[in-house]
Amino acid sequence: MAADDRAPAPATYRSAGVDISAGDEAVQRIRAAVAATARPEVLGSLGGFAGCFAFPSGYHHPVLVSSTDGVGTKTAVATATGRFGTIGIDLVAMCVDDLVCTGAEPLFLLDYVAVGVLEPGRMEQVVSGVAEGCRRAGCALLGGEMAEHGDTVPAGHVDLAGFAVGVVEQQEMLGPERVRAGDVLLGLPSPGLRSNGYSLARHVLLERAGLSLEAPAWEGAGHSLADELLEPSVVYTPWVLAARAAVGAAGLHAAAHVTGGGIPGNLRRVLPADLDARVETGRWAEPRIFGEIRRLGAVAEEEMAEVFNLGLGMVLVVDPAAVDAVADAVDGAGGRALEVGTVVDGGGSVELVRP
Amino acid sequence: MAADDRAPAPATYRSAGVDISAGDEAVQRIRAAVAATARPEVLGSLGGFAGCFAFPSGYHHPVLVSSTDGVGTKTAVATATGRFGTIGIDLVAMCVDDLVCTGAEPLFLLDYVAVGVLEPGRMEQVVSGVAEGCRRAGCALLGGEMAEHGDTVPAGHVDLAGFAVGVVEQQEMLGPERVRAGDVLLGLPSPGLRSNGYSLARHVLLERAGLSLEAPAWEGAGHSLADELLEPSVVYTPWVLAARAAVGAAGLHAAAHVTGGGIPGNLRRVLPADLDARVETGRWAEPRIFGEIRRLGAVAEEEMAEVFNLGLGMVLVVDPAAVDAVADAVDGAGGRALEVGTVVDGGGSVELVRP
Repeated sequence: MAADDRAPAPATYRSAGVDISAGDEAVQRIRAAVAATARPEVLGSLGGFAGCFAFPSGYHHPVLVSSTDGVGTKTAVATATGRFGTIGIDLVAMCVDDLVCTGAEPLFLLDYVAVGVLEPGRMEQVVSGVAEGCRRAGCALLGGEMAEHGDTVPAGHVDLAGFAVGVVEQQEMLGPERVRAGDVLLGLPSPGLRSNGYSLARHVLLERAGLSLEAPAWEGAGHSLADELLEPSVVYTPWVLAARAAVGAAGLHAAAHVTGGGIPGNLRRVLPADLDARVETGRWAEPRIFGEIRRLGAVAEEEMAEVFNLGLGMVLVVDPAAVDAVADAVDGAGGRALEVGTVVDGGGSVELVRP
Repeated sequence: MAADDRAPAPATYRSAGVDISAGDEAVQRIRAAVAATARPEVLGSLGGFAGCFAFPSGYHHPVLVSSTDGVGTKTAVATATGRFGTIGIDLVAMCVDDLVCTGAEPLFLLDYVAVGVLEPGRMEQVVSGVAEGCRRAGCALLGGEMAEHGDTVPAGHVDLAGFAVGVVEQQEMLGPERVRAGDVLLGLPSPGLRSNGYSLARHVLLERAGLSLEAPAWEGAGHSLADELLEPSVVYTPWVLAARAAVGAAGLHAAAHVTGGGIPGNLRRVLPADLDARVETGRWAEPRIFGEIRRLGAVAEEEMAEVFNLGLGMVLVVDPAAVDAVADAVDGAGGRALEVGTVVDGGGSVELVRP
């Protein structure tokens, strides 16, 4: 039968903007990176209806702990520079470092990557970063979704969400009910912004000050502003788990992941109603980038403290008798813990004491 | 000290496009809907660093099962109509109906909602839908993230991802290794597109045919095209769990959630290499919307079958001796199961037999 030349060309998924083969190619490209994160508990393989993970034995009253997060508009820096290789590390840090604040060991993570146009090479960069983050956190990358949404995500952009699951023995959960007056605050340093405050940072540095991402980060800097803004988030989970293994929940009382809300906003979440935290900001060196944002944007000090981590990405609340053991354990795991303050009688608030 | 009039106004998070108070208002608005999904295992409340869920007792070799998904460009129909109340139900269906294909009971779900501008009323609609979906699935809405990303999501648009966790006894997992020649295929009807194929559906109906979302879905229809395209996905999980409870994994061998890839693409995932599935398309009534898309887009039959569910959103693979008990159990749970085909010797492929 002859084709009818008058008929419109048949509509296809491809003509509607969805390229299944690009998705297949991306899946092939990420396979090895994903496989490298597998733990012995992972059952089955990429391609089933769901990821399967044998529940670890040995828990008496296990609690599943779960968190979801994104990397905010740090993705816009990745888009502007075409450098998508490390935002996946940020994604994992945002998720697992929330989990570990309960004392949980992260077991697995799933990622969701939405793009305007699925470009396999870019997807490979993103997911390789997620896999690298999972490797650092010691969790399996159990599954993920790549969504091609021309309507909701502009071409060239990427939106990223992660979901992590961990487990903790109920009697060993960390939190405000363990915190006592006299507890010591140990800060874990962050060399950069982690993944918070990027809307304000970009507004100040790129729009108001008109800086170029390719120029030195500041006068005399040996690295570009893009390098500075893409600095991957430290994954604190191994350090916190090492501390907990060393001193237990009797020594490590609570942990606060410093994200939106800054040090005061997040430390407040682990304080009981009758205690205050006093943080002495002179106890650690604030990385230069925060000063640049403060200066170029004339940003008020309170706003700085509520939006940025100012150099501490995690604060541990530690029994005074356990401070040395926690510091040693963090050192032993390749990290560093600095005494930055104490818990005192009060009303549930956080005071930043400037030198 | 007098203010310096020459200094630029200080940059703030708000001046950078992030409105924290809108986020706080949205959290207040969704609190009741989220609370309504709580199960007894949920510990703590909204606002901790992570959601906590006491692991259910009674499992010998529990396997955690996890899946993540989005709702594709069905969100574009929500945006075009301002009707965001049901895409959350779709989100839950996409996630938990993947989980249940392993035989797992969903325990909890987390959602990630990215918007260009955080509008509390719209966010409330979206999350209320997610909560309603969780209620239908019997799982807790354990947490979520609302992200305001002016750069990556255009104003007025919403992107949506979900992440579900369930548990199944390892010895009772469903899957291809249980499927035998002679097994019966029971289809669970879908009245509409669920959440797949929207890029093609919108391309054909709205762009090529130029239909209006506010006009009748087709000539003589008593409902609009928007109503048709926003039809919430059936949450099959309670039906599948009822079937499994009635006949066990010895009777219910496998389940295939019909998403991207259609009936052939998904049924193939539960076939062993030496068996085929024969699906007789005359055994169920294809909903009218699929015929409209086929006709108006001159879409090839094979493309239709690989992109759309064509009226079956889930296919159960059932031992012949268990067919009546499964059908009764699904009926008893408020659903319906139709005999649509059989498993026969072959090579791992799916044949759609047209009448």
